Amino acid sequence: MNMLSMPHVGVLPAGVLGTIGDVAGVTVGHCTLADGPIQTGVTVVRAHRDDPYRHKVPAAASVINGFGKSIGLVQVEELGVLETPIALTNTFGVAAVAQAQIRAAVASSPQIGREWSTVNPLVFECNDGYLNDIQALAVADQHYVAALDAATSRFERGSVGAGRGMSCFDLKGGMGSASRIVNVARQDFTVGALVLANFGRLPMLTIDGVPIGRELSARKQTSTQPTATKPEQGSIIMIVATDAPLDSRQLKRLSMRAAAGLARTGSVYGHGSGDIALAFSTAWTVPHEADFIATPPLLSDTRLDPLFHACADSVEQAIIDALWSATSVTGRDAHTRLSLREAAPDLEQLLKRHTT
Amino acid sequence: MNMLSMPHVGVLPAGVLGTIGDVAGVTVGHCTLADGPIQTGVTVVRAHRDDPYRHKVPAAASVINGFGKSIGLVQVEELGVLETPIALTNTFGVAAVAQAQIRAAVASSPQIGREWSTVNPLVFECNDGYLNDIQALAVADQHYVAALDAATSRFERGSVGAGRGMSCFDLKGGMGSASRIVNVARQDFTVGALVLANFGRLPMLTIDGVPIGRELSARKQTSTQPTATKPEQGSIIMIVATDAPLDSRQLKRLSMRAAAGLARTGSVYGHGSGDIALAFSTAWTVPHEADFIATPPLLSDTRLDPLFHACADSVEQAIIDALWSATSVTGRDAHTRLSLREAAPDLEQLLKRHTT
Amino acid sequence: MNMLSMPHVGVLPAGVLGTIGDVAGVTVGHCTLADGPIQTGVTVVRAHRDDPYRHKVPAAASVINGFGKSIGLVQVEELGVLETPIALTNTFGVAAVAQAQIRAAVASSPQIGREWSTVNPLVFECNDGYLNDIQALAVADQHYVAALDAATSRFERGSVGAGRGMSCFDLKGGMGSASRIVNVARQDFTVGALVLANFGRLPMLTIDGVPIGRELSARKQTSTQPTATKPEQGSIIMIVATDAPLDSRQLKRLSMRAAAGLARTGSVYGHGSGDIALAFSTAWTVPHEADFIATPPLLSDTRLDPLFHACADSVEQAIIDALWSATSVTGRDAHTRLSLREAAPDLEQLLKRHTT
Amino acid sequence: MNMLSMPHVGVLPAGVLGTIGDVAGVTVGHCTLADGPIQTGVTVVRAHRDDPYRHKVPAAASVINGFGKSIGLVQVEELGVLETPIALTNTFGVAAVAQAQIRAAVASSPQIGREWSTVNPLVFECNDGYLNDIQALAVADQHYVAALDAATSRFERGSVGAGRGMSCFDLKGGMGSASRIVNVARQDFTVGALVLANFGRLPMLTIDGVPIGRELSARKQTSTQPTATKPEQGSIIMIVATDAPLDSRQLKRLSMRAAAGLARTGSVYGHGSGDIALAFSTAWTVPHEADFIATPPLLSDTRLDPLFHACADSVEQAIIDALWSATSVTGRDAHTRLSLREAAPDLEQLLKRHTT
Repeated sequence: MNMLSMPHVGVLPAGVLGTIGDVAGVTVGHCTLADGPIQTGVTVVRAHRDDPYRHKVPAAASVINGFGKSIGLVQVEELGVLETPIALTNTFGVAAVAQAQIRAAVASSPQIGREWSTVNPLVFECNDGYLNDIQALAVADQHYVAALDAATSRFERGSVGAGRGMSCFDLKGGMGSASRIVNVARQDFTVGALVLANFGRLPMLTIDGVPIGRELSARKQTSTQPTATKPEQGSIIMIVATDAPLDSRQLKRLSMRAAAGLARTGSVYGHGSGDIALAFSTAWTVPHEADFIATPPLLSDTRLDPLFHACADSVEQAIIDALWSATSVTGRDAHTRLSLREAAPDLEQLLKRHTT
Repeated sequence: MNMLSMPHVGVLPAGVLGTIGDVAGVTVGHCTLADGPIQTGVTVVRAHRDDPYRHKVPAAASVINGFGKSIGLVQVEELGVLETPIALTNTFGVAAVAQAQIRAAVASSPQIGREWSTVNPLVFECNDGYLNDIQALAVADQHYVAALDAATSRFERGSVGAGRGMSCFDLKGGMGSASRIVNVARQDFTVGALVLANFGRLPMLTIDGVPIGRELSARKQTSTQPTATKPEQGSIIMIVATDAPLDSRQLKRLSMRAAAGLARTGSVYGHGSGDIALAFSTAWTVPHEADFIATPPLLSDTRLDPLFHACADSVEQAIIDALWSATSVTGRDAHTRLSLREAAPDLEQLLKRHTT
Repeated sequence: MNMLSMPHVGVLPAGVLGTIGDVAGVTVGHCTLADGPIQTGVTVVRAHRDDPYRHKVPAAASVINGFGKSIGLVQVEELGVLETPIALTNTFGVAAVAQAQIRAAVASSPQIGREWSTVNPLVFECNDGYLNDIQALAVADQHYVAALDAATSRFERGSVGAGRGMSCFDLKGGMGSASRIVNVARQDFTVGALVLANFGRLPMLTIDGVPIGRELSARKQTSTQPTATKPEQGSIIMIVATDAPLDSRQLKRLSMRAAAGLARTGSVYGHGSGDIALAFSTAWTVPHEADFIATPPLLSDTRLDPLFHACADSVEQAIIDALWSATSVTGRDAHTRLSLREAAPDLEQLLKRHTT
Repeated sequence: MNMLSMPHVGVLPAGVLGTIGDVAGVTVGHCTLADGPIQTGVTVVRAHRDDPYRHKVPAAASVINGFGKSIGLVQVEELGVLETPIALTNTFGVAAVAQAQIRAAVASSPQIGREWSTVNPLVFECNDGYLNDIQALAVADQHYVAALDAATSRFERGSVGAGRGMSCFDLKGGMGSASRIVNVARQDFTVGALVLANFGRLPMLTIDGVPIGRELSARKQTSTQPTATKPEQGSIIMIVATDAPLDSRQLKRLSMRAAAGLARTGSVYGHGSGDIALAFSTAWTVPHEADFIATPPLLSDTRLDPLFHACADSVEQAIIDALWSATSVTGRDAHTRLSLREAAPDLEQLLKRHTT
């Protein structure tokens, strides 16, 4: 089995890279901490290479299930812009990363918190406590800086960055990404998704419509953990980027479609899962200081359906990508999560049996 | 092909009736208008047989996509109760049905609008304008009364009541229903769904994970309408009932899981689609007049996952049921929607080919 | 006492007319029903003279307390535009007015509900049941048409239109309006408010900071109703217009400031009060059919404070205007509401005693 | 001038202490950092003396203006409970305090983040950057611990704890508190408010209806800062406690009434102000682990008006209390905020002149 064999969900074509990096200007960086019981990290998504505080990015979020400790969403809801890079980490690393974001913003703009207003850190999280000794509070300032410095359009996925310790469907989860190209109003637009996938129990796993988790679950060989019926404590963060000219109200609509892609993989937005989607546009920025804000002509809402399809497909694909890209990891207390590849060596046959 | 052959989605068992009528006390009534260009109707869902104003039902809604003209949700959001039966009809019939609800409430409680406060009509709608001459404003007071009088736990689905003129995936849609039983805290609870299905374009249709719409779409024989790429103008209303003791905050959480069931059938919550879910509990009621409201012990949020699964499965199943139960209808301007049975006589084989 | 003596709240100047009519293009029309026990009506606010469906107006609402039966807000929240005139009437008249809005839209655009999507009626309401025999369902189609036809920038306030039967602070309430001019980014912008004031018990009444209601309440001469301590069943609808270039997110922020103006008059947003504010901008429109929507340069959020002040002041002033403009009305069952002038002939002295 | 002379707003009586400490079980602790350019601190509000994670407190919040960096509200919105003490600090201290809350929760329950789920830190903030060198990131772990340890029902207000560096109406702001007693359904209930007041420009200041800020502003002697017209960058956090048995939906309604109290002091919820209210009930708790949650009989929504009045009055009174209790502070770069007492030595006369 190899990457080429990953099913392509839906009928829309992917971009060249097949990741959120297909949205021009978007880069992703990881800092991975993998040392015995410490299996965690930080991932950063940048919308552009400019100063994010001086060139704010239009954005909005949908909280599909709010069992989550992400920070920064109150202000995003009110003002509809991002003013830092987007950061992802483990639940107990949020504070350290937020502090690092503040330090970085102040370093760039010493007026912040003095002549100017403060800055709104934006940090998303999932709980990687099954593999990672989350109580060790291992994530620190420099890991955010390292992730930021590493940002590139050609980034790794799987058991890296914030995804290092994450579990998904009782398998190894982590970072996944995908993209789709749509033609709207005679122009091509790109939608890309990046997910931090840390949700679901094995019996729910559905790949491209195939309920493969039921079969794998019956085999009972996929995890060192007994097949538990206890509620999941996972989460998924879904970052959606597009180069289509949308405003924050429209981006909120776009972000909501992540719920459709997520559902197709088997999720019912479990009680203990913080399922949050954030969408942003790279088509324009909002200056920190101005009387008026010039916006480009925005796509009409009546033209959004192709973008909605692209969002749902990208998120579904990105979750599959996270499972496909992940490598098995053993962490604290000898807890192990097998990769999908290892848990189901005959995965390709399983999928074929169902789809031909 | 017959009803027995309808796929059962998921692993949870259905109730005896396999409809929302499995939730004890819940009844559904239809009034169908089918006369040439008039192909529409009214459907009513009752939570119990008592006066709904004096015994209010805990409830909450999730607006998944708000391109809709339903009325009553502002007050449901604030107070968390229903005080009328739930009514469904076509978009331009909402006002007539709301007026009928007011008349019925005042007839039962002449204090309404005088010594007492007013009453909050609750009417959901989809646009059946492809088959129905919606501009004729055919729905009137007496149709609501007739639907109310007809309410029973053993009700029809398909091209009846509010579902008479509805389209779904370019096929004949309409009323569908389903139920699931879950065991939580050593007790059985029932979740039932009733949908008014009027959304989707054929290529999106997915049944139990199988993208059957792509194949049917390729055949181009399913509709008198040319296979259009124009955006859908449909909607879906999803009513979820349970006998589990939940309050309105928890019911809002439950209603949100309808989005998962909907997504599994191929929807991405299209721009022009009013996708709204409302959940209510039959476990307790709120008196119109009291100092204190006694609630039963409520299920802990940590125990809700089985109910979330049941909600998603019931909604998905109810949508399939709507397609399965519908009969072909010809309406205004010779517009015709074929039933899924007629559009895909080999449906059972199609589904088998994919799932064995 | 005359109109000149009405206190001017705040320090911002009013426009020429001192009403929402100061926002260029905005017109208001009333149809008043005053015949024995029928004391009610319809008021219409138009944002411009063009077809509202083809030239949609950016808008947003804040539900401050959702004990209300207004319709149309679900779609306004999703799409951020109005596509009909704004209508106000009594609680049980909402359906008739919505039906009339549908008829008017279809008459202008026969494609609605056929080739095109449907139309979103927008009708706000308060309960005038103390003076008006609301159960008579007296409001009908033609009253909406008449109010629409009567729309002008120089409209009456007080006991007219939808305000005919409304009560406010146990006095005669009804329609009120006000405006303020602010200079932002070296340009003058106008904010106007129109309120349908039907809330509050007398002891709460506060005019320009003076708790005049306590004194009037002590006199016990202001109403034929015994000074009740039962909860209010009123409501207030606050329509805010501006010519500043704002989008729907910003207009939602603006609409929220109506809560500040309302609070200054003594309201605590009572349980039974539907307190809803809607704000719209006349600076641009959204065409019904287009690939892209051109927006003018929008005011930066950092420049909104003067508009926020203008909104709060306009709403407070409009409520005072409603009380000032109202004439006493006797309606059903000999129920009477005295105007503030009649209830407090020495009002000017009362206010002076407190403020000099 | 002394504390006795502070005006009592409204007609409802205060509790014995006249603070949020009148709600039985509620305690407040401060840790104050006052050293040259460092003028900041931490304040903690405890709902009860038990472990907050194992005995969660029903709660809900209203975001009146979301220009704020508080954390924890996503989960409070979803689940309707608090599981840590409520913490308040400066904007850049949020992360350190959140980290401290995590450490404290893990110390009490080592299962957190391992067998159990994680914990939701709840930290509110205002920007004290005018007086405090916020970039120094002076707030640390031990300051949260110290504030927690200091919690008592008889706590100080003014320039202490999180309020140390706060400004309000260009004067010295900070911590304020108040309470009101209401009789509902033949029982006495207490509502208490605690505010972190850091908002407003001097000309807006209104005390008990008297626009005293206009006069003080005209004198131009109240601040070392030139009387600026630039937008405020302040915020206010309003914590509301009650012993009335309410659930989270009702507490959300209660918290919204803080907006009324805030408006009466002159606020229009400025663009740059994070105006957030959180309400909780001490009448019952939610265990961390249970099948069912027993709730006491809840007050009917129809009985909430007295509590709404008490909330608005308590918040208004608490803001006045913050101004009344504050002492002048000089901080970074010789920035000084005068207390209201110093800025207006004739305050009592000013208020009397207006109100007699």
